[in-house]
Amino acid sequence: MALQGLLLLPVLLGAGAPLASAARQPALWPLPMSVQLSPNLLRLAPGSFEIIHGPQSSAGPDCFLLQDAFRRYREYVFGYLKSPDQYSKSFVGAELQQLLVTITSDSECDAYPSSTSDESYKLIVQEPVAVLEAREIWGALRGLETFSQLVYRDPYGAYLINKSEVIDYPRFHFRGILIDTSRHYLPVKTILQTLDGMAFNKFNVLHWHIVDDQSFPYQSITFPELSNKGAYSPAHVYTQTDIKLVLEYARLRGIRVIPEFDTPGHTDSWGKGQNDLLTPCYKRGIKIDVFGPVNPILNTTYEFMSKFFKEVSKIFPENYIHLGGDEVDFTCWKSNPDITEFMKQQGFGQDYEKLESYYIQKLIDIVSSTNKGYIVWQEVFDNEVKLKQDTIIEVWIGPSYNLELQKVTAAGYHAVLAAPWYLDYISYGQDWKKYYKVEPLDFSGTESQKDLVIGGTAALWGEFVDATNLSPRLWPRASAVGERLWSPANVRDLNDAYERLTEHRCRMVRRGVPAQPVFTGHCEM
Amino acid sequence: MALQGLLLLPVLLGAGAPLASAARQPALWPLPMSVQLSPNLLRLAPGSFEIIHGPQSSAGPDCFLLQDAFRRYREYVFGYLKSPDQYSKSFVGAELQQLLVTITSDSECDAYPSSTSDESYKLIVQEPVAVLEAREIWGALRGLETFSQLVYRDPYGAYLINKSEVIDYPRFHFRGILIDTSRHYLPVKTILQTLDGMAFNKFNVLHWHIVDDQSFPYQSITFPELSNKGAYSPAHVYTQTDIKLVLEYARLRGIRVIPEFDTPGHTDSWGKGQNDLLTPCYKRGIKIDVFGPVNPILNTTYEFMSKFFKEVSKIFPENYIHLGGDEVDFTCWKSNPDITEFMKQQGFGQDYEKLESYYIQKLIDIVSSTNKGYIVWQEVFDNEVKLKQDTIIEVWIGPSYNLELQKVTAAGYHAVLAAPWYLDYISYGQDWKKYYKVEPLDFSGTESQKDLVIGGTAALWGEFVDATNLSPRLWPRASAVGERLWSPANVRDLNDAYERLTEHRCRMVRRGVPAQPVFTGHCEM
Repeated sequence: MALQGLLLLPVLLGAGAPLASAARQPALWPLPMSVQLSPNLLRLAPGSFEIIHGPQSSAGPDCFLLQDAFRRYREYVFGYLKSPDQYSKSFVGAELQQLLVTITSDSECDAYPSSTSDESYKLIVQEPVAVLEAREIWGALRGLETFSQLVYRDPYGAYLINKSEVIDYPRFHFRGILIDTSRHYLPVKTILQTLDGMAFNKFNVLHWHIVDDQSFPYQSITFPELSNKGAYSPAHVYTQTDIKLVLEYARLRGIRVIPEFDTPGHTDSWGKGQNDLLTPCYKRGIKIDVFGPVNPILNTTYEFMSKFFKEVSKIFPENYIHLGGDEVDFTCWKSNPDITEFMKQQGFGQDYEKLESYYIQKLIDIVSSTNKGYIVWQEVFDNEVKLKQDTIIEVWIGPSYNLELQKVTAAGYHAVLAAPWYLDYISYGQDWKKYYKVEPLDFSGTESQKDLVIGGTAALWGEFVDATNLSPRLWPRASAVGERLWSPANVRDLNDAYERLTEHRCRMVRRGVPAQPVFTGHCEM
Repeated sequence: MALQGLLLLPVLLGAGAPLASAARQPALWPLPMSVQLSPNLLRLAPGSFEIIHGPQSSAGPDCFLLQDAFRRYREYVFGYLKSPDQYSKSFVGAELQQLLVTITSDSECDAYPSSTSDESYKLIVQEPVAVLEAREIWGALRGLETFSQLVYRDPYGAYLINKSEVIDYPRFHFRGILIDTSRHYLPVKTILQTLDGMAFNKFNVLHWHIVDDQSFPYQSITFPELSNKGAYSPAHVYTQTDIKLVLEYARLRGIRVIPEFDTPGHTDSWGKGQNDLLTPCYKRGIKIDVFGPVNPILNTTYEFMSKFFKEVSKIFPENYIHLGGDEVDFTCWKSNPDITEFMKQQGFGQDYEKLESYYIQKLIDIVSSTNKGYIVWQEVFDNEVKLKQDTIIEVWIGPSYNLELQKVTAAGYHAVLAAPWYLDYISYGQDWKKYYKVEPLDFSGTESQKDLVIGGTAALWGEFVDATNLSPRLWPRASAVGERLWSPANVRDLNDAYERLTEHRCRMVRRGVPAQPVFTGHCEM
């Protein structure tokens, strides 16, 4: 039996077999649930090694998702080597000739990953054929990543892998990265590169904070004026083609794309292309040319939202939509006499949180009618909006996030933790350790409350981030969050993590994701 | 008369001439000493506009430095456009056809820039020919940068420039960027990109902290084992060819390259390739396999340093060498019985600063014999080492750097300020403002003391910086230091600086230096 999260290197050494030196331990990141590494090494011949479907697999060559993954991981392991002839096969020791990938349940290769996807897998590396077994294709993707991390090169350039056995599945099933394409537009290329990095770290949710006050890059079919007027420029938009590309690139990596269309606050850019959507603000009783949050008292607002979210629900295959709901500034609502009158009619008194809840409630009904679930920022819960029981509350306000997790789960809602992982807040030195040390379940509550914490999100807000600095700022800092959310809770050794993370970041750089250094040193390239 | 550092836009508008809108003000960075901008616009035709030598210039087509600069700045202004035919000449308004560049003193086009180089220039933009006049080629380079910053495009893509007059020279003649190639090796390409960024910001000193504890990438001719053993790997070295390339690329941009070979501390990597150079450390009287600073009591140390710095003084044309001298840890010296005995013989008592001074004194004599001047970190001054009067003291210890500047200049030494500009210390938000607000002469002292402060250095130490993140971390944060060191002291308006810096960073991105965003927004590309 393998111990959870421990690398077991049996003392018994195989006679005459090449041995892995301590320094050459494969740097697995995030560390799997269980790993047994034998000191016995197998060699791989780049020209002939194959990743293929197992004979018992429900998936075959028509499973394009796996076909693409086989190609991709072959490339990650061996680089761009194509000529088998330059590699001698006359080496000493055993050879690993194939990796057989077997899907045991019905393979749904055209599906999108979802909240119920199974990412577990089992990997047995032995001569001459390694076996990767997974219930679903999503687990196969994670196992391929692990397999690729097990292979390393000896000083002569030969490819080696330890005989080994890995049993693995994620601790939390929601492991997100938030990108913000409103404060700065991110070219599609940058988003795809981020998805690459996510796959290397077994993240499975792209929380796409696609629009906000500053710009509206989503090119709507129903309301094209939103981006025509609300984007930074006609070049700074995501066309439907762009979005399809992101969705498919993510799908191929087992990554869900959850779009966030944040309302009623954070909506300045919406107002440019949609008249009467935002609340007109007043100063000393006179209407001024400034707008506040979405206007919650007009029927037209809800007609617009119905049409808009109907489109969004069709474009994004994901079962959840993020509705935002954070940081609503009441100043403008308070200034507006029509809103004052409405508050009176509804008997809200001076409690503008009630007005906010009124809006959110109606929005939630709209979105629910599209058969989508929703995620909201914690204020929506704090303001006691009536929510469906499967609502996900994203906890973002620090430092008392533990208390909020306690409250949210006590109320029976699902929680996603983002508060301690705001990666836009940079600081000097190895701040990855701070992110690594977080324990999401470190709050007072019952076991069933803990079960309601489904994961977390590393949030790289975009005020100071664009294509010039996103990747080195995100990686490997987000990797710390990745391991916390995937690996067993007892995987907490900072020294061991440092060693693995240092090599893992070099691996990301070699694979084309410019992750910044952990500390002094160099990468073998 | 133009006021210092003010953009004067006369109210009188030329009849019928195209006018510059306020939003379209050229974003000059760093702001010149004096700028007069007329609202009258001239157009430039990319296909036919020329930058050429003025008829009175002492420089001509055999001045390769200027020839290269003409080509480069043409490219910066017009991009890679080559076909003149696609641009109609039938526009309304006056045309600027040429920029004549005139060098008034003897042009020394093969020389290296030095501490006495003259960077002043005068630029008059009027139809049909603009004139850039400079005493030396170095001033012409700065003027070309300014000229390129004056050109902008109207909404139709046409190239425009205001009729204008610029009189300019730097406030401080030492404006440095420190890079650290020991904590992480920086590929030559990254260093060249940094030199590009420096030219865009009128920096003129690359302080190359080339070796340190972690690695010794300088490939010495005399002592090849230093990098053979001390570099991270055989691939992580700067060959003599690499260094020549850096020196020439810098020279063409009017940038001095001051190498730092820091001793007697920060020398772990030296010991790997040079036996007996470092002090053997002892534990409870027994020699252990650990080494301390350079061993100051052996004749062989000084024989080595003589040969080594003789080589360095030949390879680097710069008149100054940075000798380091910071952060010497006395623990190992204290443990070593031979050193204890030497201290006794010399009558140093328990004052190891005297031993440090003893070493530095001898090193300085060695370097002086090569006819080079030297720069040292402030400890060397603090420890009362006897220094030549033209020694430059680099002040790096904050926050009481003002006091240190006061002391250094009171003693009659030159000072370079780095303390408030350690750009490796990152923090959230617009920290450029912090760097921008620094006033190097804000200390108690006479006018002649102030005159001894020759400039400053923005230091991007390499513990957490390599090729993946250097450029976005350096730019535009270092630009704030660039303006502080070039522009008049009264150029301090943060709002105005914000506007110009935002556009300046976009310009850097367009020119191939991935500078990170100042704040939310986008670049027109």
